[in-house]
Amino acid sequence: MSHVYDRVALIGLGLIASSMFWAIKRAGLAGEVTGYARSAETRETARRIGLCDRICDSAAEAAEGADLVVLCVPVGAMGNVAQEIGPVLKPGATVSDVGSVKRHVIEAVSPHIPEGVHFVPAHPLAGTEHSGPESGFAELYDNRWCLLVPAEGSDSEAVAKLRDLWERMGANVEEMDADHHDLVLAVTSHAPHLIAYTMVGVADDLRRVTDSEVIKYSAAGFRDFTRIAASDPTMWRDVFLTNKDATLEILGRFTEELFALQRAIRTGDGEQLFDYFTRTRAIRRGIIEAGQDTDAPDFGRGKAAQ
Amino acid sequence: MSHVYDRVALIGLGLIASSMFWAIKRAGLAGEVTGYARSAETRETARRIGLCDRICDSAAEAAEGADLVVLCVPVGAMGNVAQEIGPVLKPGATVSDVGSVKRHVIEAVSPHIPEGVHFVPAHPLAGTEHSGPESGFAELYDNRWCLLVPAEGSDSEAVAKLRDLWERMGANVEEMDADHHDLVLAVTSHAPHLIAYTMVGVADDLRRVTDSEVIKYSAAGFRDFTRIAASDPTMWRDVFLTNKDATLEILGRFTEELFALQRAIRTGDGEQLFDYFTRTRAIRRGIIEAGQDTDAPDFGRGKAAQ
Repeated sequence: MSHVYDRVALIGLGLIASSMFWAIKRAGLAGEVTGYARSAETRETARRIGLCDRICDSAAEAAEGADLVVLCVPVGAMGNVAQEIGPVLKPGATVSDVGSVKRHVIEAVSPHIPEGVHFVPAHPLAGTEHSGPESGFAELYDNRWCLLVPAEGSDSEAVAKLRDLWERMGANVEEMDADHHDLVLAVTSHAPHLIAYTMVGVADDLRRVTDSEVIKYSAAGFRDFTRIAASDPTMWRDVFLTNKDATLEILGRFTEELFALQRAIRTGDGEQLFDYFTRTRAIRRGIIEAGQDTDAPDFGRGKAAQ
Repeated sequence: MSHVYDRVALIGLGLIASSMFWAIKRAGLAGEVTGYARSAETRETARRIGLCDRICDSAAEAAEGADLVVLCVPVGAMGNVAQEIGPVLKPGATVSDVGSVKRHVIEAVSPHIPEGVHFVPAHPLAGTEHSGPESGFAELYDNRWCLLVPAEGSDSEAVAKLRDLWERMGANVEEMDADHHDLVLAVTSHAPHLIAYTMVGVADDLRRVTDSEVIKYSAAGFRDFTRIAASDPTMWRDVFLTNKDATLEILGRFTEELFALQRAIRTGDGEQLFDYFTRTRAIRRGIIEAGQDTDAPDFGRGKAAQ
């Protein structure tokens, strides 16, 4: 297959970047992939496991001469990295990112993109609770969504090329406006993460129930929360700080609803509870039908979990 | 292998009972298993798929002459079923249940247990989001916990026999006091379920984000909530109504913590968020080490989900 880009640079080498590398290799989508991570230990690991064709000791060195530079660092670090690589970017190159928040990234990165370089923000909706250079795998994006968030007036050829890359890494691609992206993600990802973190924290705090009991008896419900709450702390701190308004709006609505259900419990209103639970069940069916999850009971964990 | 009981009766034929039947058959733990479900359609399905050796048309008929009768109906229906079968119970028989709440079940069932019959409440901590007679499978209890909640002065031989049954169905068994059980489960299961139901309901309500967007982009976080929120509405209504105090206590603490984290987001206190998320990550590690979940990324969903 023909390359999409001659040279791709991955700045930041965690789960997302390392999965991109293996997906690019799987389909032969780039001539050379360079990589950079701020931590010397991460760069060392990357060299050891063959992650990237060439690991560089600075972001600028990795980005220099690249046709596509993808910023794969926490949202709060995007601006600094863009500032660092701005001066070495090749005319006609594309800069993209994989941040979970888009409005903030656009505001932080855009000022550092020189004339003649295209900035096409992106967000692949895929992940696991693992992080770091060794957590990536080529199949992460298969049949997952990648949202492109091009600014008005973006170069359509640059957008089409990036779409081609993501599709050939296995993803389904759609375009979305930055503010709408941030609201949709606040609902489907950011608020649920904060809620899961909170519940796991409450369990840990409770003196009358020991940690060991919480851990042993976590099969029903709580276990799934702990998976979500095991995600990378730096990444998630940045998400909440940079998608503050949408996240707080959704959490406000969540609290209202939770209070209404608590009242139903307190007053013994079984009908309200039953109706609510019946409605939420239908949403699950929609997700299965949309192919975004497996219908296997308990995620097909069955024997694997033992 | 020798039978644990000559005759076992399963009252209610959902996920838990049908999995018990297949687990009993797998290890040859009973001479005959009778079954009863209130719905004629469920009894018909059970007969068609060979669930139970004999399907009866009343709970009393199924329970009559049984050495072990297991109540596998929603918590709110336990008392009525116990009343129905009480008069036909065989002297020396054991009655047990599988309810997710124990104090309420004990209060509802005990008055109907005749002299000379042993009541040993139990709660297997296993399940999936599926329900009904066709959802069961023999491996459901393998390496999962089953909590026995015998009253003080319970017949130790009856308790030991029930423990033997659960262990040979694959479970690890521990004994626990009823009130402590209800508190532990409020933390690990009941509150997380209500929270997941609530978040899924909020997403459904939000007019500016379409259901189809919620469904399509649910990969990160929200998807796991929808799985939890797809659980059986009748069962969960009863759980919340009958474990009211402990659930409301945990939800109260949850709300306090959530408010603290919301304030940290609003004021931009990244350090507090980072510390909190780092602490919750450690709990996840404990669960993996305790063998209650798989360390495979994304539950090993990878290819299965496609």
